Amino acid sequence: MKYAVVTFYPDNKKVVVPVGTDILTAAIKSNIFLSSSCGGKGICGRCKVKILSGEFSFEPTGKISEEEKNKNIYLACRTFVKGNIVVEILPSVRLPEKKFIEPFEKGEKTELGEIPLEKFHPISPLTHKYFLRISPPTLNDNMSDLERIYRDLEKLNLNSPIITLQDLRKLPELLRESNWEITVTVGKINGKNEIILIEPGDTSKNNYGIAVDIGTTTITASLINLNNGESLRTEVSFNRQITYGEDIITRIIYAEKPDGLEQLHHIVVEVINQLIQSIVLNSSINLNDVTCIVCSGNTTMMHLLFKVNPSFLRKEPYTPSANFFPDIKASEVGIKINPSGILSSVGGISSYVGGDITAGVLISEIYKKEKLQILIDIGTNGEIVLGNKEWLVCCSASAGPAFEGSGVKDGMRAVPGAIQSFEIKSDVKIKTIDEKLPLGICGSGYIEIISELFKNGIIDRSGKFIVSKKFNRIRESSECKEFVICFQKETGYEKDIVITQIDIENLLRAKAAIFAGLSTLIKKSGVDWNEIEKIYIGGGFGNYLNIKKAISIGLLPDLPVKKFKFMGNTSLLGTKMFLLSKQAREDSNKIVKKMTYLELSLEPEYMEEYLSALFIPHTNLNLFPSVKKI
Amino acid sequence: MKYAVVTFYPDNKKVVVPVGTDILTAAIKSNIFLSSSCGGKGICGRCKVKILSGEFSFEPTGKISEEEKNKNIYLACRTFVKGNIVVEILPSVRLPEKKFIEPFEKGEKTELGEIPLEKFHPISPLTHKYFLRISPPTLNDNMSDLERIYRDLEKLNLNSPIITLQDLRKLPELLRESNWEITVTVGKINGKNEIILIEPGDTSKNNYGIAVDIGTTTITASLINLNNGESLRTEVSFNRQITYGEDIITRIIYAEKPDGLEQLHHIVVEVINQLIQSIVLNSSINLNDVTCIVCSGNTTMMHLLFKVNPSFLRKEPYTPSANFFPDIKASEVGIKINPSGILSSVGGISSYVGGDITAGVLISEIYKKEKLQILIDIGTNGEIVLGNKEWLVCCSASAGPAFEGSGVKDGMRAVPGAIQSFEIKSDVKIKTIDEKLPLGICGSGYIEIISELFKNGIIDRSGKFIVSKKFNRIRESSECKEFVICFQKETGYEKDIVITQIDIENLLRAKAAIFAGLSTLIKKSGVDWNEIEKIYIGGGFGNYLNIKKAISIGLLPDLPVKKFKFMGNTSLLGTKMFLLSKQAREDSNKIVKKMTYLELSLEPEYMEEYLSALFIPHTNLNLFPSVKKI
Repeated sequence: MKYAVVTFYPDNKKVVVPVGTDILTAAIKSNIFLSSSCGGKGICGRCKVKILSGEFSFEPTGKISEEEKNKNIYLACRTFVKGNIVVEILPSVRLPEKKFIEPFEKGEKTELGEIPLEKFHPISPLTHKYFLRISPPTLNDNMSDLERIYRDLEKLNLNSPIITLQDLRKLPELLRESNWEITVTVGKINGKNEIILIEPGDTSKNNYGIAVDIGTTTITASLINLNNGESLRTEVSFNRQITYGEDIITRIIYAEKPDGLEQLHHIVVEVINQLIQSIVLNSSINLNDVTCIVCSGNTTMMHLLFKVNPSFLRKEPYTPSANFFPDIKASEVGIKINPSGILSSVGGISSYVGGDITAGVLISEIYKKEKLQILIDIGTNGEIVLGNKEWLVCCSASAGPAFEGSGVKDGMRAVPGAIQSFEIKSDVKIKTIDEKLPLGICGSGYIEIISELFKNGIIDRSGKFIVSKKFNRIRESSECKEFVICFQKETGYEKDIVITQIDIENLLRAKAAIFAGLSTLIKKSGVDWNEIEKIYIGGGFGNYLNIKKAISIGLLPDLPVKKFKFMGNTSLLGTKMFLLSKQAREDSNKIVKKMTYLELSLEPEYMEEYLSALFIPHTNLNLFPSVKKI
Repeated sequence: MKYAVVTFYPDNKKVVVPVGTDILTAAIKSNIFLSSSCGGKGICGRCKVKILSGEFSFEPTGKISEEEKNKNIYLACRTFVKGNIVVEILPSVRLPEKKFIEPFEKGEKTELGEIPLEKFHPISPLTHKYFLRISPPTLNDNMSDLERIYRDLEKLNLNSPIITLQDLRKLPELLRESNWEITVTVGKINGKNEIILIEPGDTSKNNYGIAVDIGTTTITASLINLNNGESLRTEVSFNRQITYGEDIITRIIYAEKPDGLEQLHHIVVEVINQLIQSIVLNSSINLNDVTCIVCSGNTTMMHLLFKVNPSFLRKEPYTPSANFFPDIKASEVGIKINPSGILSSVGGISSYVGGDITAGVLISEIYKKEKLQILIDIGTNGEIVLGNKEWLVCCSASAGPAFEGSGVKDGMRAVPGAIQSFEIKSDVKIKTIDEKLPLGICGSGYIEIISELFKNGIIDRSGKFIVSKKFNRIRESSECKEFVICFQKETGYEKDIVITQIDIENLLRAKAAIFAGLSTLIKKSGVDWNEIEKIYIGGGFGNYLNIKKAISIGLLPDLPVKKFKFMGNTSLLGTKMFLLSKQAREDSNKIVKKMTYLELSLEPEYMEEYLSALFIPHTNLNLFPSVKKI
């Protein structure tokens, strides 16, 4: 096999790859992540790079304009290394990591809502540290080292937790060297108490857990003090798997390639590790004091996390390998917390409704209520749950990541600097998260922008820019019409921030998918809209979501605003509860058992509903009386 | 570091060792096992080798006679390699492996007694194979792969056993490739059901377990058909740790050396693996169909098996690291059965009363009886249990391995060819196990020999050969007086089979230790001999033990013969029950909880009892009225 060196500018990163490798793969190998929504199939036309010098071949593609050809721009996924080569990564193509990995000093208050800690006092975390002063053996009391520990734990109502052979081997010296004062960390693993860790001295004050929401587009992690339930720090990062495709189907297909599953698994673990590392470093705690991690995510993400073949998720009849993954040592999948720390996960429901939704049901408590409730979790997929304490039914609508700021030109996560509010009065008026200089637009910003553009007659009901409308912010780019939300001069950012015609189409498709799922679920359940007492909304929309404007574009049903509650990242919040409360862990299993899954692709009316919902707010305006009035 | 080659004759085995290494260590490295009861400390004087050529140094020792010096005979443990060297292993020094690793085609009937299979029908083995015909998923029934298995197992009253991540990862392909027909092996690990193994097709007919008794001197293993409880084959081997010392204290001291624990651990695992390999090969079954192994042994042996530091067992206040070891994958300690197969062990009681005794109590059922019962397990240690369904008390007497055929000149295990019966009429009359040509003497043989020598006035009450007595079989060797049991011409064996004065002393010490333990236990418990309803005897004595003769030498108390029951290897039998019966596994825990341990070294009267018991039958003849009569 012949090899060649690929050098990436401006990073000046070099990587050696076999001749014949495509540039996208070489970039990934160098830890440079490019935007690519098709997973390297040459379809999306996003992974454009500039070849500065070197030998290469390429497959012709319609995605490169003449102008680009003249500038030596090629699709990375369709360009193949023949000899040493130098490649420039275009700024617009690079995944804007810097922009997406932002910490929340007080994450709880900016995006993530709060968990009702008061509801489960005393907290019963997944792992618990017990400081034991063991009475040393005497001739009259010479039971074994292990039984001495058990005797003391029994007084705390812990009945002989399992010890690993590794810990047992360390026990005799550890007990004697620590003068019989030790801290034992006990956790429930697969329903059975286990000794996770035995440390000399008293470390019981330092016990932390990590809650992780693994989204298709973003991964969010929170550090929790397991002694008092406090959320110490939350950070969010891109799910860099996105390089292999924006939606889960593309990723599943990638996982079917040789080594594909291994690669996707490795990436998610790496992102989680980077998040943990950053959180731990910034919180001045010791990584060894993190004794457990709980993950929730959609079923595909969980398969990839556990490196279990996700292939059958996408093939009829759409079966997961598992909805519940076994509790394991986190190190078994390469997650770096305490080497003996455990990885648990929130159980899921079906191939397209995962543990993130179980967590959402947990935090919204719809499974405890008399009257009917709805939970809508708007992520790359839009999952919807309808029910009460008697029954629960759910579905999943393939929305795409537009509301998460991906697949839209200037989209970004709901982090400081994201435009989250937009109004047109004499001129446009924007608000950013934390009032930082604007960097891009997050989900709630897009909702308000579309609502305002429609209200002001700048776009029509199908989302098209109205040609006759003159506005100094409407202009034509090389690709399509666009509306300038914010000029470069007004921002610290490198360029104008815009919403394009293509963005609007993407956003309308996303909102249509979600609304169509919602109304299909309502109809199939024989429920009337008025029976709904409460609608909980989850998703990374920033501090808040303007419910009225979300209704006005037809994303949410036209019900009284007071019936809606925006809860932020319900998956993460529910995962924290799972981490902190035995009751929540037990309830999560009950929720899964109770839930019925509705496969939308088998429901003919879903497609009809979808097509009707592609308009603003809907083809059937009677469904939106309050919008009609405007 | 300089290295040298040591060549061992007659094996012609070569090994490279650092200069300065002793010959004993070099021999062990070459898998040549020499007799050495002191563990290489130059004390026992047994590991004699002949140096044929080469450079070496040695420490002078009183253990080598002038005659031996002239023949270039040295102690292997006190002789150190300086350069390449050629060493001859003397036949008398080599551990007679061949003689000790003998199979029992129908082990049950020759030595090992029978387990009361009828008592626990239907059997409930530690691991169970279930053949499942899983209904393939459809759009209307698309629960996950794992839940499909759980659904079918639930019908068999098995509630969601834990699956390992490794098995889960194989699941999707395995199910589909096997056409949804699989065999699931489920076992209880640390009190929780776990999926051990998932295989394609129906393998449920082939499920086997191994029961192992790890004695200080010998290791016995049985292959059991877990579907019907049948014992298929039993083999016995020397515990080659014996090279590091005959008694457990010497081994513990060896384990405290750098690498010592690792070495002893490695040896016991290796012996067990060789036994399993031989049994499996001879039984024409597949090693992969062996899904579990259960071991029992004294507490030191269990520490060495699990590689847990045994050091504190021998130091006041004599505490084990654990009496219960966790259930693990057998592969975790290197035991070779199915790579996913489990290793379980019978829980022990204290530093000197291990799971082998728990197993003995289990099979003798003394813990279920109204009236008082005794269990005596005669091995390298003599453990004694006294009690009934109300209470149990136990002790351990350091007998030494004489009754196991070790530390006595022509001793051997109770395997075919061992002299097990002996009578003096006009001349001596011997019987061997399976009526094979005599190879040596086993425990029951020694008991009869001493009894007969005493009865015929050849030895006195202190075991000394009576000088005045003329008998053509008494002669003087270079070391001491000896009595020829069997002349070479009468046997196929390489030499005369004898009992020496030293042998007799060893045997009397062994019987004295056991009897003293027994009477101390009786006295401390405030029990009268007549209250004892039954005495169960365990140990490797051959097909049978002549109770009368054992009483006549003062090994057993002078009670009616019908009160005694010889049960063979009670540790192995109890271990088989543990393997086959859920009830037995539960009972074994109850036994451990109920048992009180009496430390003989803390009882001043034990030493008095011991000194009195060194005579035949005892200094107090009133204790042995039936012997007095003779």
